[in-house]
Amino acid sequence: MIILLKKNTDDKKIKYLTGKLSALRLTTKLTEGENLNVLSVIGDTYGVDEESIKALDFVVGVKRVSEPFRLVSRKRNPKDVVIEIGDKKIGGGYFGVIAGPCSVESESQIISLAEKLSKIGVTALRGGAFKPRTSPYSFQGLGEVGVQLLVKAKKETGLKIVTEITDARQLDLFTDVDVLQVGARNMQNFELLKEVAKTNKPILLKRGLSSTVEEWLLAAEYVVSSGNKNVILCERGIKSFDSSSRASLDITSIPTVKELSNLPVIVDPSHASGNAKTVKPLALSAAAVGADGLMIEVHDEPSLALSDGAQAVTTKELSDIYKNVKKILPITGKTIN
Amino acid sequence: MIILLKKNTDDKKIKYLTGKLSALRLTTKLTEGENLNVLSVIGDTYGVDEESIKALDFVVGVKRVSEPFRLVSRKRNPKDVVIEIGDKKIGGGYFGVIAGPCSVESESQIISLAEKLSKIGVTALRGGAFKPRTSPYSFQGLGEVGVQLLVKAKKETGLKIVTEITDARQLDLFTDVDVLQVGARNMQNFELLKEVAKTNKPILLKRGLSSTVEEWLLAAEYVVSSGNKNVILCERGIKSFDSSSRASLDITSIPTVKELSNLPVIVDPSHASGNAKTVKPLALSAAAVGADGLMIEVHDEPSLALSDGAQAVTTKELSDIYKNVKKILPITGKTIN
Amino acid sequence: MIILLKKNTDDKKIKYLTGKLSALRLTTKLTEGENLNVLSVIGDTYGVDEESIKALDFVVGVKRVSEPFRLVSRKRNPKDVVIEIGDKKIGGGYFGVIAGPCSVESESQIISLAEKLSKIGVTALRGGAFKPRTSPYSFQGLGEVGVQLLVKAKKETGLKIVTEITDARQLDLFTDVDVLQVGARNMQNFELLKEVAKTNKPILLKRGLSSTVEEWLLAAEYVVSSGNKNVILCERGIKSFDSSSRASLDITSIPTVKELSNLPVIVDPSHASGNAKTVKPLALSAAAVGADGLMIEVHDEPSLALSDGAQAVTTKELSDIYKNVKKILPITGKTIN
Amino acid sequence: MIILLKKNTDDKKIKYLTGKLSALRLTTKLTEGENLNVLSVIGDTYGVDEESIKALDFVVGVKRVSEPFRLVSRKRNPKDVVIEIGDKKIGGGYFGVIAGPCSVESESQIISLAEKLSKIGVTALRGGAFKPRTSPYSFQGLGEVGVQLLVKAKKETGLKIVTEITDARQLDLFTDVDVLQVGARNMQNFELLKEVAKTNKPILLKRGLSSTVEEWLLAAEYVVSSGNKNVILCERGIKSFDSSSRASLDITSIPTVKELSNLPVIVDPSHASGNAKTVKPLALSAAAVGADGLMIEVHDEPSLALSDGAQAVTTKELSDIYKNVKKILPITGKTIN
Repeated sequence: MIILLKKNTDDKKIKYLTGKLSALRLTTKLTEGENLNVLSVIGDTYGVDEESIKALDFVVGVKRVSEPFRLVSRKRNPKDVVIEIGDKKIGGGYFGVIAGPCSVESESQIISLAEKLSKIGVTALRGGAFKPRTSPYSFQGLGEVGVQLLVKAKKETGLKIVTEITDARQLDLFTDVDVLQVGARNMQNFELLKEVAKTNKPILLKRGLSSTVEEWLLAAEYVVSSGNKNVILCERGIKSFDSSSRASLDITSIPTVKELSNLPVIVDPSHASGNAKTVKPLALSAAAVGADGLMIEVHDEPSLALSDGAQAVTTKELSDIYKNVKKILPITGKTIN
Repeated sequence: MIILLKKNTDDKKIKYLTGKLSALRLTTKLTEGENLNVLSVIGDTYGVDEESIKALDFVVGVKRVSEPFRLVSRKRNPKDVVIEIGDKKIGGGYFGVIAGPCSVESESQIISLAEKLSKIGVTALRGGAFKPRTSPYSFQGLGEVGVQLLVKAKKETGLKIVTEITDARQLDLFTDVDVLQVGARNMQNFELLKEVAKTNKPILLKRGLSSTVEEWLLAAEYVVSSGNKNVILCERGIKSFDSSSRASLDITSIPTVKELSNLPVIVDPSHASGNAKTVKPLALSAAAVGADGLMIEVHDEPSLALSDGAQAVTTKELSDIYKNVKKILPITGKTIN
Repeated sequence: MIILLKKNTDDKKIKYLTGKLSALRLTTKLTEGENLNVLSVIGDTYGVDEESIKALDFVVGVKRVSEPFRLVSRKRNPKDVVIEIGDKKIGGGYFGVIAGPCSVESESQIISLAEKLSKIGVTALRGGAFKPRTSPYSFQGLGEVGVQLLVKAKKETGLKIVTEITDARQLDLFTDVDVLQVGARNMQNFELLKEVAKTNKPILLKRGLSSTVEEWLLAAEYVVSSGNKNVILCERGIKSFDSSSRASLDITSIPTVKELSNLPVIVDPSHASGNAKTVKPLALSAAAVGADGLMIEVHDEPSLALSDGAQAVTTKELSDIYKNVKKILPITGKTIN
Repeated sequence: MIILLKKNTDDKKIKYLTGKLSALRLTTKLTEGENLNVLSVIGDTYGVDEESIKALDFVVGVKRVSEPFRLVSRKRNPKDVVIEIGDKKIGGGYFGVIAGPCSVESESQIISLAEKLSKIGVTALRGGAFKPRTSPYSFQGLGEVGVQLLVKAKKETGLKIVTEITDARQLDLFTDVDVLQVGARNMQNFELLKEVAKTNKPILLKRGLSSTVEEWLLAAEYVVSSGNKNVILCERGIKSFDSSSRASLDITSIPTVKELSNLPVIVDPSHASGNAKTVKPLALSAAAVGADGLMIEVHDEPSLALSDGAQAVTTKELSDIYKNVKKILPITGKTIN
C-alpha cells in the first residue's frame, strides 16, 4: 500500500499514522517527492481500512498494491479449490454443467425435466423456488413448495440440487438442498452471506450486475472468512449501456478471476443473453475461455414458462451444447466428470 | 402494451394469448404490418409479466407503453406524498435535511453532534449502526449498541432518527427508530422490503448503484403494495466508467422521478462524491433541480471517522450549506419546515 | 414503427403526420387505447427520422420495430458478405487472423516480424502508423514513414497490410495499403467514413468504446451507403465500471451482429484486455462464439514496444493461439484459408 | 509516479528504467517491500508514457500520483482562464448563455430566432450546420449554407456565433464563425483538435459520451499544446445503463473540472436530457453547482425542427430559465455580462 502525504506534513501526524499501521504489524518507509511524499507500507495490508486513512487531512491518496482479500487469493493459496457435489466435482480441472428451469413450476415439469437432464449427464439440477423479481406483480416462485418439489426430483433421479436462497430466515427449508445459490441482487447482502456460510454447503455466488471483480471476490471472502471455503463463483453478465442483449457477459472476468483467485468460476449464459438463440455460442465461448462450468436454463416448453422462458433452451439443445463443449474442453485441459 | 407477432401466426396461438390477456381484463386489437403484426393491448397492463409473453414462440417483441407500476405512479395519484417525521415534513413543498455521521462511533460523538445539528435545525439525525461494507475486514458498525446510542441522542435532543436496516431479523431493535433506511445494496432485497413495509414507518429507499429509475420505482412499489405508502426515495449516485468521483450523481433522475411518481425524492451528495469538498456544490445543485431534501454526512473530526471520513463535512460547513440551500428553495417553490 | 399519440389529438395534426409518412411510401393504422392511441406505421421505415417525430407535441413516444439500417441488414441480405484480402478471405465460413505490432517502430522490427508472421500463415499484417493517443505527450506513431515501412514489409513478404487512417487528408498516403482501419475513437467520424468508402478497399471498422451494436451497424451503413460494401466489423471491448481489464470484451455482440447483419465480424482481444496473458483465452472464446477472425498485437520484444507493449504477445505465443484456434473452428463451421 | 517492480529484479534492468527516466529529468528512489519493490519517481512526470513502462517484464504496475496534463492544470496555472467572445466573457466569474436551434434550417428561422435571443441577452448564438447523425438517413444539416445563414444572423443582430466543425477540410468555411465547437463524437479526433487549435479562436470542446474527466482534459491539452489556450469545456451527459433520460448529466464533473483545471466549463442540459421539460431544472442545477455557463437548444416551433426538436425549449421558456439562473448566480459568485 502506498499512502500519498502532503509535503510539510507535521511529524506528529505522520507518527500517528505510522503508529496505527505498526499496530497492524506493518512497517513504513517515507520517500520525499517534489509535490508530495510517499509512504510505502510494507507487510500484509488486506486488513487496512483505506477509507479511514483517506480521511486524514494530511493524506492525499491511498493506492493499494496488493489485493484486499486473503483467503480467496491465489497468491496465498495457489492450489485450485475443488467443490464436491455428491460424487461430481467442479474446479481443479473438473468442468460442471448445472441445468434446469428458471422456476420450478409443477411436480410433473421438474421431474420429467430432471429425468432427461440426468440422462444427458449434468452435474446438478437447478430450479428457482424463491424468485427475486423486479416487479411485485411478476410470478414470485413457488417458495417452500418449490424447494420440496426439487427435493422430490432429487430423490427420483439422484441428481444433486441447486436453488436460490433470498433471506436467512428460509434456511430451515434448505436442509436437503445441496448447493445454495446467492443471486446477483444479493451478492452484497452480507448478512445473508454470513448465514449461508454456516451451513458449510457449497455456495454458488453470482456476480452482482454492477460489481467489479474485486467486489465479487470480497463477497466470496465474506463466505470463506465465515468458515466455509466451498464457494463457486458464477459470472452472469454485467449492466452496460447497450440493450441489444439483456446483460453484457463479461467473458474477460473468467481469466481475471483465475489469476486472482483459486476459486472455481462458472458462466451462466442464459441470464447474460436473455435470448435462447445466443445461449449456445456463449456457452462455447465460456468453455474456450477456461471457465470451470456452466449454468444453463432449460425448459421443454419455453412458451409456457412462468419466468424467463425467452432464454431457456430445450433439453435437445442442451444435449447439443453439452456435446460441443466436450470437444472444446481438451484445449483448456478440463474434463466433465 | 404493444406485442409484436410473427406474420402468419396461427389463429389458435393468437387466441391463446388474447385469452390470457382478457383474463386480466385487457382487450386487444390486431394490426397487420408488412413484416410483422402488431397486437395493441388496451387496459391496465401493470400486472402483465412481459417475460412470459416474450417467451411465446410467435412473439417477436413486447413494448410497454405505460408504466409497470401503479401505486407509486403520479399519473394515477397526482397528489404529492408528504412524509411526516415527527412534526417535520418531506415532500409536497417541504424540503428536509437529514444529517449525521456515517457511523455511530460513541455516545459522546453522537450526542455532541446531535446537539449541534439540532441547533442548525435539521429535519432528522442519521447515523449508521449496521454498516454494509465491501470488505469483511472493514469496520462493520456498532450494530445494536449503535442503534441504542442513536435512541439516546433522540431522547437528549428531540431529533427524530434515521438508520439503516440490513436484515429483517434486526427489526425488533428498531422499535424506537423513526425512519428505516434501506441501502443501495439492498434496494432489490425484496424480502427485506416486504418486512420493513409492515412497520408502517417511513422507509428511506436508496437507489441501487446500477438500478434504473424504473427498477427503483418498482422497489418502492414493493413497499407500497405491502401496505406502507410512506416511502422517501434517495438518489445517491450510480456506477459509471469514470473514477474521478466515487459515483456519478444522476441529477436528471430527480425531475424524472418527479414526473413519473408522486413520492418525495431526496439527494445524498456525500456518497455520490466521496469527497467533502464536492458536497456543497452537489447539495446546491440538488436544491436547484427540485429535490425534496438532502441527506448529508457530518463529522466534526472527519480524520478520526471509522468509515467514510473523506466525504464528511463539518457542522460548520453543513450550516453554510443549509443557509445557501435556503436561498435557492424559493426558486423551486419549496420551504424547510 | 409504432407511434404513440395523446388521446384526443386533433385530426388535423394526425393528418399532418400521416401525410409526412405517406410521402415516404408508408401507410398507417390507428388503434384507440385507454390512455393513448397507437399509430402503426406499415412499410419500410429505415429512413424515418425518429427525432423529428418525437418532437411533435401530440406524440408521446416512438418505438421502432424494424431495424434502422437496410444495406447491412441480414434480413434484407441473407447471404454472408465475404471480404477478399489478396487471395485470402474473411467471412462466409472463412476465418482470418490479422496480426502485427501496435506501432510500426523501425524497418528491422516490422520486416523481421512480418517474415515470422508470414510463416505462421496469418491473413494480413497490421501495424499502427498514425496512432490516436489519449495524451499529446505519448508516442504518436511514425505517420507517413510508418505507412512506407509497412508497404516495404508487404513487398518483402507478400503479406497484405492493414493500418489505421485518422483523417481524410491522409488518404493519398494509403494507396498501397490493402485494408483501411477506422479506429474505435473515429467510429462516428462520419466525414472520415464517407471518404474511406470511396476507395472501395475493405474497411476494418472498430466498435466505439461506448457504441451500441445498432450505432456500430449504422456506422457501417454510412460506408456501405457511400458505395463500399467491403466492411469488416471489429469488436474490441466496451467501457465498463470495472477497471480489472482495460475494456470489457462484449462477446455477446458477435452472435448479435451475426443475427442482425451479414457483415463479417472479428475480435481484437489485445485492446480488450490490455494484458498479454489474457489474449489467448479471449482469442479462443472469440473463435468458439462464432467470430470470423481475430486481430492480435504481436511484438517480439514487448518491453521495448513504443506503445501498448503490455498487451502484445510474442510470435511464439501467436503461433500457439493459431494452432488452438484451428482446433475450435470445425465446431463453428469455419476454416482458415 | 509510483512504479511497482518485481522482487529480485536484476539491477541492470532497474538501471535501464532509471536511465530512461533520468533522461526525462526525473529522479527515482527505491523502497523494498515484502512482495514487490516500489520505485518512486520524483519530478514532472506528465510526459512519461505509462504504457511503455507497464510493458517492461519486471514492472508489475504503474500508478500516477500527479496529473498527466500540464497546460490545462489548475495546480500549475491557478488563475481562471477567461474566454472573450466579442465583448462578452465566459470563465473567471463570468457566466455565459449560448443558445440557438439544434440545426440551422432556413434564413427566416435563424434570423427571427437570433433577434429574440439578442433581446433576452444571450452571450452567443449557436446553430448546427454540419450535423453528425447516427444514421446516414437522418437530416445531416445544411452544411456550408447553414454556416452562411449563421453569419447572416450575426450581421443582422451582432450576436457572435458558435457552430460545430466535423472535419479539418471545412475550416475555410468557418472564417466568420466566432467559436468552433468540437462535438462529443469528435472529442478524441486528435487531427481535428490540432487543426482547429491553429485558428486561435475559442474552441468549445464537448465531453465524449464515454470519456473520463481525465481524457477530456487531455483532449483540451491537445488544443492548448498546439498553441491555443482558448478552450471552453462543455459537459453534455455521459452514457449510462438507464434509458430514462437520453444521457446522464454528470453534474459532479463540474466541481471536479474546477478543481483540476483552470479552464471554464459550461453545461448543455438539452442534449443531456433529450426532453424539453427537463431542461429548466438541469439548467438551474448547473448554475448552482458552479458551472461557467449554459448551452441550450431553442426553437420556437419545436414540432417542426429537423433534428432534436423534442429537447428544444421556446424563447419564452429560455427567458424564464435566464431569469431564474440570474437569481442563483450570486450564490456561486458569478455574473452574466
